[in-house]
Amino acid sequence: MNSSTGLDTSHQTIVDLYPIDNYSFGEKAPLPDKDRSVAQRFQRMEHNYKKEGMRRTIDGVCLVHNHGHPHILLLQLGNNYFKLPGGKLRPEMDEHAGLKSKLTSKLSPAIKEMQRDWQIGEIISTWWRPHFDPNMYPYLPPHVTKPRECKKVFIIPLPDSCSFAVPSNFKLVAVPLFELYDNESRYGCLVASLPELLSKFHFVCH
Amino acid sequence: MNSSTGLDTSHQTIVDLYPIDNYSFGEKAPLPDKDRSVAQRFQRMEHNYKKEGMRRTIDGVCLVHNHGHPHILLLQLGNNYFKLPGGKLRPEMDEHAGLKSKLTSKLSPAIKEMQRDWQIGEIISTWWRPHFDPNMYPYLPPHVTKPRECKKVFIIPLPDSCSFAVPSNFKLVAVPLFELYDNESRYGCLVASLPELLSKFHFVCH
Ligand SMILES: [Zn+2]
Ligand SMILES: [Zn+2]
Ligand SMILES: [Zn+2]
Ligand SMILES: [Zn+2]
Repeated sequence: MNSSTGLDTSHQTIVDLYPIDNYSFGEKAPLPDKDRSVAQRFQRMEHNYKKEGMRRTIDGVCLVHNHGHPHILLLQLGNNYFKLPGGKLRPEMDEHAGLKSKLTSKLSPAIKEMQRDWQIGEIISTWWRPHFDPNMYPYLPPHVTKPRECKKVFIIPLPDSCSFAVPSNFKLVAVPLFELYDNESRYGCLVASLPELLSKFHFVCH
Repeated sequence: MNSSTGLDTSHQTIVDLYPIDNYSFGEKAPLPDKDRSVAQRFQRMEHNYKKEGMRRTIDGVCLVHNHGHPHILLLQLGNNYFKLPGGKLRPEMDEHAGLKSKLTSKLSPAIKEMQRDWQIGEIISTWWRPHFDPNMYPYLPPHVTKPRECKKVFIIPLPDSCSFAVPSNFKLVAVPLFELYDNESRYGCLVASLPELLSKFHFVCH
C-alpha cells in the first residue's frame, strides 16, 4: 500500500516513463512501401502465405509522457494512417530478435554508433487475421483453422533518453491515451485498444 | 516454437480452460441490490467517498471453453445488464483477500464444505472513475487528481471442475469472446474490451 496516494500497486508491473523532451527525433532515408494499393497488399500476403505459411508480425509499444499523461509513439503515413512500429518476421526468426531488428529499421538513427539495443517487455496482445482482408480479431474465431496472420504486440521499455530517426516517408507522432481511447474510427481496432491493453501496468512518470 | 502449429508461445502466459460441462451451476438466496435507481447509487457512492475516500473495486474474470472457444462467466441482472463478479473492497482490505471473499459471495455454493479457495491470477486492467457518474476510463484522465473510484480486474484460473451457485436475482451466463468483441453498446466499455485484454494469454483448451 502506497500511503501517500492510498493506492495498492503491489500486484502491478511498474513501467517507467520519461518526458518526451528527453528524446530527440530525426529522419532518415525513406522506406518505400512494397504495395501500391490495399488490393496489391493482400495479393502479396496470399502469395507469401503459399510459400511460407502463416504470416507472423510483431509490433512494439514505446511510451513517453507529457505532463504526466502517457503517450504512445505511432508511425503516421499520410494524413489518416497510423501504425505501431514493427513488421513481419522471416520464417524461423525469433520474436524478440525480429522485433529488435524491426524497431531499429523503423526508429533508430542510420548511424550504427547511435543505435541502441532494444529491450523487449511483456506481450500485451495477440491478433489473428482469418482471411486475406483487413479484419483482425483478438482471438482465433471459431472454425478458423488456418489463420493467415498472427500479430503479437509487446511493450518496449525506453531508456530515460535516446535518439529516434524515422524513414522520411513516415512521421513519428506521440499520441496521448485519451486521444486513442474509444477512437477506432480514426486509429483502427488494434491501436484504439491500446489504452485498455496498457491499463494493467502502473506507470511512473519521472 | 511449437512445431505442430508453427506458433511460438514462449513469451506468453498459458491459461488452462476446461469445458463448460465440467462445472455445475446452481442458485442460492438473493443478494438484494442496495440502490433503487442509478441516481441513488451515485448518491451512496458520494456519501461513502466523504467517509472513506476513493472507492476501490475488484472484478474477477473466470473462463471456461465450449468447443474450444473461450467463454467468460458474467452475472446477468434483468435482460440487459451484465457484469463481472466482484465488488467493493472495505478500506484497508487487501485486493486478493477482498476478491476471494467477493467471488465466494457471488459464485460459491452457500454450504461451506462446497466452497473452494479461489486462486487469483494476474491483473489484466485498471479503470478510473473521475466523477460520480457512469463514465470510467482505462487511465487516469489528465487533470483528474481525486478519482472517485479505481477498479482492478484480475484473471481467475479455475480448477478442472467445481460447483457454482449464484444469488437467485442474478443469472450466471457464459458469453463467448466473439459475442463480446466490438459490442460496447450491449456490454459496456469494460466487458466489451475483455477479448482484447485476454489476448495476451495463450489459452489451452482441455
Ligand atoms: Zn473494432
Ligand atoms: Zn505510483
Ligand atoms: Zn467505450
Ligand atoms: Zn498451444
